[in-house]
Amino acid sequence: MSTAKSINAYAILEPGGQFESYSYPVDDLKNNEVEMDVLHSGICHSDLSMVENEWGLTKYPLVAGHEIIGKITAKGADVHGLKPGTVVGLGWHSGYCGHCHPCKTGDQNLCPSAVRTIIGHNGGFAEKVRAQASSVVVIPEGMDPVSAGPLLCAGITVFNPIVQFGIKSTDKVAVIGIGGLGHLALQFLNAWGCEVTAFTSSDSKHQEALDLGAHKTLNSRDPDALKNAASSFDFIISTVNVKLEWNLYLNALKPKGRLHFVGAITAPLDISMFPLMLGQREVSGSPVGSPATIETMLDFANLHNIKPQVECFPMTEINQAFAHLKTGDARYRIVLSND
Amino acid sequence: MSTAKSINAYAILEPGGQFESYSYPVDDLKNNEVEMDVLHSGICHSDLSMVENEWGLTKYPLVAGHEIIGKITAKGADVHGLKPGTVVGLGWHSGYCGHCHPCKTGDQNLCPSAVRTIIGHNGGFAEKVRAQASSVVVIPEGMDPVSAGPLLCAGITVFNPIVQFGIKSTDKVAVIGIGGLGHLALQFLNAWGCEVTAFTSSDSKHQEALDLGAHKTLNSRDPDALKNAASSFDFIISTVNVKLEWNLYLNALKPKGRLHFVGAITAPLDISMFPLMLGQREVSGSPVGSPATIETMLDFANLHNIKPQVECFPMTEINQAFAHLKTGDARYRIVLSND
Repeated sequence: MSTAKSINAYAILEPGGQFESYSYPVDDLKNNEVEMDVLHSGICHSDLSMVENEWGLTKYPLVAGHEIIGKITAKGADVHGLKPGTVVGLGWHSGYCGHCHPCKTGDQNLCPSAVRTIIGHNGGFAEKVRAQASSVVVIPEGMDPVSAGPLLCAGITVFNPIVQFGIKSTDKVAVIGIGGLGHLALQFLNAWGCEVTAFTSSDSKHQEALDLGAHKTLNSRDPDALKNAASSFDFIISTVNVKLEWNLYLNALKPKGRLHFVGAITAPLDISMFPLMLGQREVSGSPVGSPATIETMLDFANLHNIKPQVECFPMTEINQAFAHLKTGDARYRIVLSND
Repeated sequence: MSTAKSINAYAILEPGGQFESYSYPVDDLKNNEVEMDVLHSGICHSDLSMVENEWGLTKYPLVAGHEIIGKITAKGADVHGLKPGTVVGLGWHSGYCGHCHPCKTGDQNLCPSAVRTIIGHNGGFAEKVRAQASSVVVIPEGMDPVSAGPLLCAGITVFNPIVQFGIKSTDKVAVIGIGGLGHLALQFLNAWGCEVTAFTSSDSKHQEALDLGAHKTLNSRDPDALKNAASSFDFIISTVNVKLEWNLYLNALKPKGRLHFVGAITAPLDISMFPLMLGQREVSGSPVGSPATIETMLDFANLHNIKPQVECFPMTEINQAFAHLKTGDARYRIVLSND
């Protein structure tokens, strides 16, 4: 197996820059790593946050892209179960320490030393990418590789809490925000068996939400609609990255209900104690998921034909694709493909 | 069985008033009710909140007192398993609707129509009190009735989340606030098998906290101590009713850790999204507990000799007892006893 000496990619070279062609040298492949040709690479909103250094975490040059479908071209000596030609997925994490408590208990996504694919590591807007084999999952037979990429970040982000918090098929659930994450949450929760409500601020998304698996919609801009929904839901998942009137949503939970956040909101949550305490309610957040949970998700998605709706661009049109993302009009995920 | 025609009690008759002798008439005992002589009645901080109408819920005349140890004197026709002479406990709730979903699933403490012993109902600072039999628990053989009262509110409030959220004996836990609730939480968590840390703002309580079951203490007024405790705890229970720097405590949780509130704080919780999300952490609150959980707690407390530290006053000295409570010097619960 020959491995690359350098990798051609697209990078943001400095704050405020556009993506430009960029080549970076690589060392010998490590024993626990794989190298893959990037077939498709989804664009996630967090790629945009990194491009714009919204979280102060960006290192330049930035090779973003962490919803990657690749074909393995080389593997290190200690890698088993993966071989050249295998089509795999790679998401937010490209490696784990393997020895911390979360790693040992199968919660690798909570490993404090996890390698983040686009922070201090070169991501998937490239011809090739490398990762620890432990962070790579095999794409199931029969799954469309073009639309599979967004499952590796957006998909697992909304699927993971359903598993982690034991959402029951008989639960009444709601999704806040019908976008890149929310449109997948509706599909997963519908297939899970739940009664699904979509909170959406846009009338235009009412029918789309129903088509995606919601049984009903509620206008989140109508405070009366929210008040009338008091004590209705076992689980509400928020996928938005803006501040809402969280206490209205807390009140929309049944006793013992959970308000869960997967959208990165910079404003603190103003949570009132009384609805939390008197209803024994819970507020939580979570980031992506472990490799095992990603595998479980891919199988579940494959069985139930759960797919992100994607718009495709060639990798060479990466700047146009990001411009489209910034308009807010993408329905619902954008995928870049190499030839 | 003869039942009372009127009950002698102590009541606050108007806002800002002191407790005064007060007699209220009662109807025939209902089929599902019991009447009891009040032997001992603990004073809870929420009695003071009601006396001072801190929550805007007070109705006058107010007969407070909801940590009651009584001896049954009469029972309605439909009451089974309780008989005159049985020594029982009565806490925050004096009845439940019995047909809502929480009631049907054993979460009567979350019943939205539950009768609150001191809101629109006459409580335990009295010679007698009445309650639905479903809200009354038998005090186990061998338990000291004088100190048992505070278990019915303070005790169950800190014990219930340990049960509800499946705290494991191997968990590392911490208690914020070593007062009426916290001094019981230390004892329960120690007996549960956990490694217990007491957060306390007062050096004078260091040794007391150790004596109560803490394995170590941390000074909650020292931001460095809190920062150094990052990722240390599986479970932190806050028993205080003041606003603290909650995000420091959130950061003191391990991944998947829980910050749980049982103290009634009126200021909203300012929860930052990133420590919540990146560590898959949880924030929750809970009120008292169900009758079954109260029974479980009493058995556990009896087995492990868990007792509130109490200071005793005769019921006739109720105003002096409240004055003592307001000094903040009570160690740790006050109990009023009838002759």
